[in-house]
Amino acid sequence: MTSSKSAAIVLAAGLGTRMKSTKPKVMHPLAGRPMVNHVIANLQTAGVEEIIAVIGPDMPALEKAVAPHKTAVQVDRLGTGHAVLAAKDVVAGDEDNVIIAFGDTPLISPDTFSRMIEARAQSDVVVLGFRPDHPGAYGRLVVDEANALQAIVEFKDATEEQRAITLCNSGVMCVNGQKLFGLLDAITNDNAAGEYYLTDIVALARQEGLSCSVVEGEEEELLGVNSRVELARAEAIVQDQLRHKAMVNGATLLDPATTYFSYDTELGKDVVIEPNVFFGPRVKVNDFVTVKAFSHLEECNVGRGVVMGPYARLRPGADLKDGVKVGNFVEIKKALIEEGAKVNHLSYIGDARVGPGANIGAGTITCNYDGYFKYHTDIGAEAFIGSNTALVAPVRIGDGANVGAGSTIAKDVKSGDLGLTRAPQKSFAKWAEKFRSRQAAAKAKK
Amino acid sequence: MTSSKSAAIVLAAGLGTRMKSTKPKVMHPLAGRPMVNHVIANLQTAGVEEIIAVIGPDMPALEKAVAPHKTAVQVDRLGTGHAVLAAKDVVAGDEDNVIIAFGDTPLISPDTFSRMIEARAQSDVVVLGFRPDHPGAYGRLVVDEANALQAIVEFKDATEEQRAITLCNSGVMCVNGQKLFGLLDAITNDNAAGEYYLTDIVALARQEGLSCSVVEGEEEELLGVNSRVELARAEAIVQDQLRHKAMVNGATLLDPATTYFSYDTELGKDVVIEPNVFFGPRVKVNDFVTVKAFSHLEECNVGRGVVMGPYARLRPGADLKDGVKVGNFVEIKKALIEEGAKVNHLSYIGDARVGPGANIGAGTITCNYDGYFKYHTDIGAEAFIGSNTALVAPVRIGDGANVGAGSTIAKDVKSGDLGLTRAPQKSFAKWAEKFRSRQAAAKAKK
Amino acid sequence: MTSSKSAAIVLAAGLGTRMKSTKPKVMHPLAGRPMVNHVIANLQTAGVEEIIAVIGPDMPALEKAVAPHKTAVQVDRLGTGHAVLAAKDVVAGDEDNVIIAFGDTPLISPDTFSRMIEARAQSDVVVLGFRPDHPGAYGRLVVDEANALQAIVEFKDATEEQRAITLCNSGVMCVNGQKLFGLLDAITNDNAAGEYYLTDIVALARQEGLSCSVVEGEEEELLGVNSRVELARAEAIVQDQLRHKAMVNGATLLDPATTYFSYDTELGKDVVIEPNVFFGPRVKVNDFVTVKAFSHLEECNVGRGVVMGPYARLRPGADLKDGVKVGNFVEIKKALIEEGAKVNHLSYIGDARVGPGANIGAGTITCNYDGYFKYHTDIGAEAFIGSNTALVAPVRIGDGANVGAGSTIAKDVKSGDLGLTRAPQKSFAKWAEKFRSRQAAAKAKK
Repeated sequence: MTSSKSAAIVLAAGLGTRMKSTKPKVMHPLAGRPMVNHVIANLQTAGVEEIIAVIGPDMPALEKAVAPHKTAVQVDRLGTGHAVLAAKDVVAGDEDNVIIAFGDTPLISPDTFSRMIEARAQSDVVVLGFRPDHPGAYGRLVVDEANALQAIVEFKDATEEQRAITLCNSGVMCVNGQKLFGLLDAITNDNAAGEYYLTDIVALARQEGLSCSVVEGEEEELLGVNSRVELARAEAIVQDQLRHKAMVNGATLLDPATTYFSYDTELGKDVVIEPNVFFGPRVKVNDFVTVKAFSHLEECNVGRGVVMGPYARLRPGADLKDGVKVGNFVEIKKALIEEGAKVNHLSYIGDARVGPGANIGAGTITCNYDGYFKYHTDIGAEAFIGSNTALVAPVRIGDGANVGAGSTIAKDVKSGDLGLTRAPQKSFAKWAEKFRSRQAAAKAKK
Repeated sequence: MTSSKSAAIVLAAGLGTRMKSTKPKVMHPLAGRPMVNHVIANLQTAGVEEIIAVIGPDMPALEKAVAPHKTAVQVDRLGTGHAVLAAKDVVAGDEDNVIIAFGDTPLISPDTFSRMIEARAQSDVVVLGFRPDHPGAYGRLVVDEANALQAIVEFKDATEEQRAITLCNSGVMCVNGQKLFGLLDAITNDNAAGEYYLTDIVALARQEGLSCSVVEGEEEELLGVNSRVELARAEAIVQDQLRHKAMVNGATLLDPATTYFSYDTELGKDVVIEPNVFFGPRVKVNDFVTVKAFSHLEECNVGRGVVMGPYARLRPGADLKDGVKVGNFVEIKKALIEEGAKVNHLSYIGDARVGPGANIGAGTITCNYDGYFKYHTDIGAEAFIGSNTALVAPVRIGDGANVGAGSTIAKDVKSGDLGLTRAPQKSFAKWAEKFRSRQAAAKAKK
Repeated sequence: MTSSKSAAIVLAAGLGTRMKSTKPKVMHPLAGRPMVNHVIANLQTAGVEEIIAVIGPDMPALEKAVAPHKTAVQVDRLGTGHAVLAAKDVVAGDEDNVIIAFGDTPLISPDTFSRMIEARAQSDVVVLGFRPDHPGAYGRLVVDEANALQAIVEFKDATEEQRAITLCNSGVMCVNGQKLFGLLDAITNDNAAGEYYLTDIVALARQEGLSCSVVEGEEEELLGVNSRVELARAEAIVQDQLRHKAMVNGATLLDPATTYFSYDTELGKDVVIEPNVFFGPRVKVNDFVTVKAFSHLEECNVGRGVVMGPYARLRPGADLKDGVKVGNFVEIKKALIEEGAKVNHLSYIGDARVGPGANIGAGTITCNYDGYFKYHTDIGAEAFIGSNTALVAPVRIGDGANVGAGSTIAKDVKSGDLGLTRAPQKSFAKWAEKFRSRQAAAKAKK
C-alpha cells in the first residue's frame, strides 16, 4: 500500500433505457445492494478515501443510496469526459490518484483497484485493460516494449495489425489527481457523436510528456450491466463468490446453486444450509445452525445450534437465541425467542418475547395489530401455549403458565396458572348423517 | 411472406415406450403445454392455416389437445411415409405447401418454418437440415454447387466421402401440396424394416424432374424428445427462452434459473421475481409487482404494484387488484381481492370477495365447503377480520365492520359493527404447576 | 464374477481440517448418507463381503455409521501404508483380494471395483489409474507394452518423459490378500515426510517378482473431498446420477436441477415432480403421483395417484394411501392417511389416523402433545372436520361424523353425529365505527 491519497469518481448518471425500468440503472441491486454500492464498497476496501458519484438530475433515491459520499450532477449527457468534469468542483483537489470507475460495472475487485493505485506511483495515467474471449469491437490498448501505453485505438479506426491486439480498453482509469482536470479541459468533442471522450486523455497526456501504463483485470470483473439479462449474469457471479466464501469458511451448502445470499450474510461454522434458502440483508447465522429447505431470512439473528425450517420465515427483528427451534410455516417478526424455546408449526409470532424453554403450539397467533397500532405479547419462561390459540396483545402469559388449546386470550395469565376460553362441547346425534343425506340428494338433483 | 396457402401434417402417433408412460408421447408437457401444441403454435405463428395431427388409435386426450385442429388416425405403424398418407383424406387438397413436422420435435421456431415456406416457392421439396456437433449416424444431405438437394443418404449406405458431410437430415419437410400425395403413393417398403420412409420422396421427386432444396435450422431446435431425460433437456431450453424474454421485456429475475414459467406467462415492467417462483398456466402479472421467493401462481391476475409472498399461493381464479398485499402461507382461490386489501399471513381465502382496503388477520379461514357445495364469503371495504377467525360461508361482513379475534362467524355482520364469538376467559390457579409435576413424575417412571 | 473372496479396507481416519468442521471428514453426507457409507455400499454392490474401516481415535459416530462393519483404529497418523497396517488384526486373513479404498473418495462405481477384482485374478497388485484433464502433480503410472505396471513415479521425482504420461495414480488398489501385509511390513519411512506410503508396495511387489497391473476409472469418480467446495461438487455429481436414474425409470422432473434426492429415494412410473422438491431419506413414491413444487418429504410413503403440494411437508411416519390429497401448508407426521382422504390446507396432522374418504378442513390441528407425552387422534371414514378446528388428543371422531368449524374437540364424537364448541355470536352495533374514529384520532395525535 502506498501512503498517497486516493479519490474515485464513479459515473452513475445513466438511465439504462435497455433495462426498461423507472429506476436509475445503477440502483438495480446485486445480492440485495445497488450496483453502485458494490463499486463504492470495493473502492473503499482498496483504500480509496474520497468517493464522488456523478449522477443525473432528479435521482434522489440514488443520491441517498451513495450517501454519505458526495454526488455531482451531470445535467447534459455529453460523454464520459464531460461526466468526470461534473465532479471537478466536488473533488477536494489534493488527491494523488483519482480513479474513474463506472456504476454499471460493479464486479471490479478491490485487488484490481489496489493494483491500479500502486501502478499510478510510476505513471500519470493508468488504464485498466482486459483480454476478452471475443475482443470484437472493443478499443485496443497499444503498448510498447517497455509496457508503456502508447495509445487507445477505437476499433473502427484500428489497422488490421492493431485489431489483432487482444488487450482491450475497459474505460476504467487511475489518473494523477494534479493532472486530471487539466487533461479533461483539453478534450474536444470534435467527433461524429459530438461527445467528450474520457479515453482521449491518454493521447493528451502523451502529448504533454506524461507517462501512461496498463493494469490488467479479468474479463469477468469487467462485465458491464446494461440490460436485465446482464444484471442476472452479474448476480450469478456475485452469488457464486458468496457461496464459495461461505463454504470455505466452514458452512455446508447442500446445493449451493439454490442458496441465495445477501452481500452481507454472515454464517458460522458447521452451519448446514439445505436447498432453496433465501437470505435477505443483515442476517447473522451462528455456529452449528441447520437451516432446512425453503427458509427465508431477513434482518435477523439466528443463535448457535438453532434448527429452523423447512418453510421458516424470519422477518426483520427476529432474534433467535441459542438452541431455539422454529418449524414449518412459521413467521417470526420483531420478536425475541429465548434459549431453547420452540415454535414448531403454523404460527405467527410478531412483536413478542417468548421466554426460554417455552413451547408454542401449532396454529398460535399473536394478534399484534388493531388496524392502527401494534401491541406486545410477552410469554414467560417454560410457558406452554396450546394449539390454535390467539393471543390478543397487549397480553402477558406468566412463567410456567399453560393456555388451553383453541383459546382466545385477551387477559393476562398468571405464572403457573391455566388460562383458557372454551365453549362447552355439544353433540347433535345423527346430525351429520341426516345432513349428508339431504345434501347428497340436493347434489343429485343438480 | 408469400400469399400461398400452407398446411402442416404433424406426426404424433408415437407411443414413446422409452418415456415409460401411459400417456401418448407428444402429450408430455413443456412449460405447461403438451409438446404437440408447441409445434402447432409455432406453425401458426409462421402463417400455417391448416393443421392436421396424425395420431394413433385410442388417443382421445391427444385428439382433444389438438382440437379444433383435425386429426387423422394411423392404425398400423408402417413408417413416416405411411403416417403422412393417413392424412390424405383429411387435408383440404388445395394447399401450395404442406409442412411435415413431428410432434416430438417441439422446438422448431416459427422463423425456421417461415423460411421453409419461402424456400418452397423456388423448389418442390424443401428439407430442413442442420449441422450437429456430432453428426454420428444421422442421414446426410448431399447438395450440389447450385445448392440443390441431390440426395438424402442414410448413414449406413453412405460412402466415406458422404459421411464427411456435416449437413444432416432432420426429417422435417415442406412439399408442394399438389405433388405430395403422388410422391407418397410411389414410395415402396422394399427395405430391411419393411417400412415406408418419407425421406424416399426426395429421390422420387428428382426422378420426376422436380426440384429439391435445403433450409438450415439450429441443432438445438431439432432436439427430438424420446425419453424423460430429453424431455427435461427440452424443458430447460424452453424455460431459458421464456426467462430471456421476460428479462428483455423489463422484469428482474433475481435468479433466472430458479424461475419456472408457463408458456403463456405475462409479466409487466419493473416486475421483480425473487428466486424459486413457479408459474402455472394463464398468469398475468402487471407492472411494479414484487413476487417474493417460493410463490406459486396458477390461472390468476396480479394487479399493478402488488407485493406477494414469500410462500404465497394463488390458485385459479385469484384476482388481485392494484396494491394488494398477500403475505406468507396464504392461499387464495377463486377470489377477488380489491384495491389495497391485505391478507398477510397463514390464511385461506376461497370463493370470496375482499373489499378494498380490508385487512384480513393471520389465520383467517373462509369455510367455503360443506362436503357437497361451495358457498361465498363477502367481506366489505375497509373491514377488519381479527386473527384466527373462521368465516362460515355463505356469510357477509359489512363495510367497515370488525370481527373479533378467534371468532367463528356464521351470521352476517353489519357495516360498522363488531361481530364476535368468544367464551369467557377462565383461570385455573396453579393448574399448570400441578399438571407439570404430575406429568414429569409419570414421565420419570417410564 | 469370480468366486474368490474379497475384503476392503476403507481409510477413514482423516480429520479434514480444510472442512473446518467438528465432524470427522468422511461423516459429511452426500444425498443424505455419510461419504464413507457410499464407499461401503458401492463395495458391497461389487461383491465385497468383508469391509473394515480404519478410523481415528474418538470417533464414536463414525464407528456407529459403519456398523455392522468392523473398524480398526489408527492412533498415530504415519501415512497410508501405516493406516492399512492398522487393520491387520481385524481382517479375517483368508481373502483372495483386499481392496484399499478411501472414505473421502466416495464416487467410485461398483463397476470399477468389480473390474479391479477381476483384474486381480491375473496380477497380485492392481492399481486404479485415471486420466485427468489436468494431470498436474499427480503421481504417474508407468506401464510397459504388455500393460504391466512397472512403477508409480511421484511427480517431483519424475523425468520430463514420465511427466508426459497422462495415466495417473488414484491410490486405490486391489491386492492379493495373502501378500498384502508382507508387502506392507517391508515399507519404510525413509522419505522427507517420514511417512509409510502405501504406493511403495508396487516397487516391493516387483522386487519380489509379483505382477502389477492397472485398471482405469473415470476422473469424475475419483473426486476426493477435502473441503466443503469439493463436497458440494461431489453432491452435485451424486444428485445428477439420481435424477438421471429417476427419469430413465419413468418419472418426469420438470426442472431436474431443483429436485434434491436422497440416496434411497424410490419413485414409481408416471410420477411428476414439479420444481423445488426435497427428498430426505427413506421416501417411497408410488406410480401416478404428482408432487407439486416446494414439497419436503422424509421417511414416508406416498400411495398411488396421490396429489400433494405445493408446500406439503411429510415428516417421518407419514403414510399416505392411494388417492390421498395433501394440499398447501400442510404438515403430516406419524399418521396414516387412508384411501382418498383429503387434507387440503394449513393443517397439522400428527400421531393420527385419518379414515378413508375423510375431509380435513383448512386450519385443522391435532393437539398431540402436552409438553410431556404424545397422544393419538383417530378420525373415522368419511368424517368431515370443519375448518379452524383443534382436536385435543386422545380423541376419536367416529365414521361419518362432522365437527363444526372453529371447534376445540376434547371429547369423542360418535359416528354420524355433529360435535362442536361454539360461543354464541354477538353483535356490537357501530362498535367498529367508533373504535376506528378513536384510534384514528389517537394515531393522528402521535
